[in-house]
Amino acid sequence: MGVAGPEIERLIQLLARVPGLGPRSARRAALHLIRKRDELLTPLAGAMQVASDRIMTCTTCGSIDTSDPCTLCRDPRRDRSILVVVETVADLWALERAQALNAAYHVLGGVLSPLDGIGPKDLTIAALLDRATGGEVREIIIALNATVDGQTTAHYLTDLIAPTGVRVTRLAHGVPVGGELDYLDEGTLAAALRSRTAM
Amino acid sequence: MGVAGPEIERLIQLLARVPGLGPRSARRAALHLIRKRDELLTPLAGAMQVASDRIMTCTTCGSIDTSDPCTLCRDPRRDRSILVVVETVADLWALERAQALNAAYHVLGGVLSPLDGIGPKDLTIAALLDRATGGEVREIIIALNATVDGQTTAHYLTDLIAPTGVRVTRLAHGVPVGGELDYLDEGTLAAALRSRTAM
Repeated sequence: MGVAGPEIERLIQLLARVPGLGPRSARRAALHLIRKRDELLTPLAGAMQVASDRIMTCTTCGSIDTSDPCTLCRDPRRDRSILVVVETVADLWALERAQALNAAYHVLGGVLSPLDGIGPKDLTIAALLDRATGGEVREIIIALNATVDGQTTAHYLTDLIAPTGVRVTRLAHGVPVGGELDYLDEGTLAAALRSRTAM
Repeated sequence: MGVAGPEIERLIQLLARVPGLGPRSARRAALHLIRKRDELLTPLAGAMQVASDRIMTCTTCGSIDTSDPCTLCRDPRRDRSILVVVETVADLWALERAQALNAAYHVLGGVLSPLDGIGPKDLTIAALLDRATGGEVREIIIALNATVDGQTTAHYLTDLIAPTGVRVTRLAHGVPVGGELDYLDEGTLAAALRSRTAM
């Protein structure tokens, strides 16, 4: 545009690459940030710098934190006999928000996807097997997305872990809580019927 | 959540206050930023710090830039005999994107709004009058929003500037380019009829 210095242009261009923002909303965000300099722009710049400098991947579970081992892996109240395998850190956070379990995690870093050239070596599968055979783990809950690649990966992992004797489970398929049958796909309904439970 | 260090929590909380992002998209944005640390997070943190340190308000026109006078006010190719009055810097940028004029600007910083307690002293009206009487300005284009407060302010400014002898104009009302009549409100259609032009 050339109506303001290159510094503002650069800020807008970088903001436009943040998921959820586009070129138009990045301009609006930039102006808002500049207007709220002391309350928002300066603290956010600082928080990003801290994140940039200090966030690392936990070498135990693959999650991210400012320490290694991460907060979850250091938490003495966690039940380390149950290991929940997730695809991404976002999935780990989603499960934690559900507050339904107090287990340890293992972030795979993706799923097997021959089309995208992602094989076992690209994921943290070797580290998962190490943890499975370490003696502490009794159950591995496979909490991968219910996509084709996710389910293929789940079966691959099950076959790998089976010889260790550790129990392998997966998340239940069924009707989402609050969901309406009329809006659900046939696959979900069939799965919910197959796994029906006594009232 | 407590699943990651307080630094990540703080980054997410600050991101959630950026317009266009909410609590959910802020988490997604934070994970994306951390994944793209070198390409996005670090440069964005730097760009924000530069903006925080160096952006100032131009004492001539009220726009924002890293220099004072701003890029526009220093541009020798700008026609300083035409002054475009806008409410905000965002409106200035919008007009510049239209590339329809090569004039100087004056950012009011808002519009008169008795209900919100915004009077003439809260806007840069005195500075506008100084510029209007400086001898260089021949025309003032009032480019305020077509809202009640915007139009009230436009009339207030017109009355103030009239004695200086400077010509005062405003943006035309009419059918937006590409707009369909069926979707337009009666006020716009009436204005478009009143201001009809010869084919």
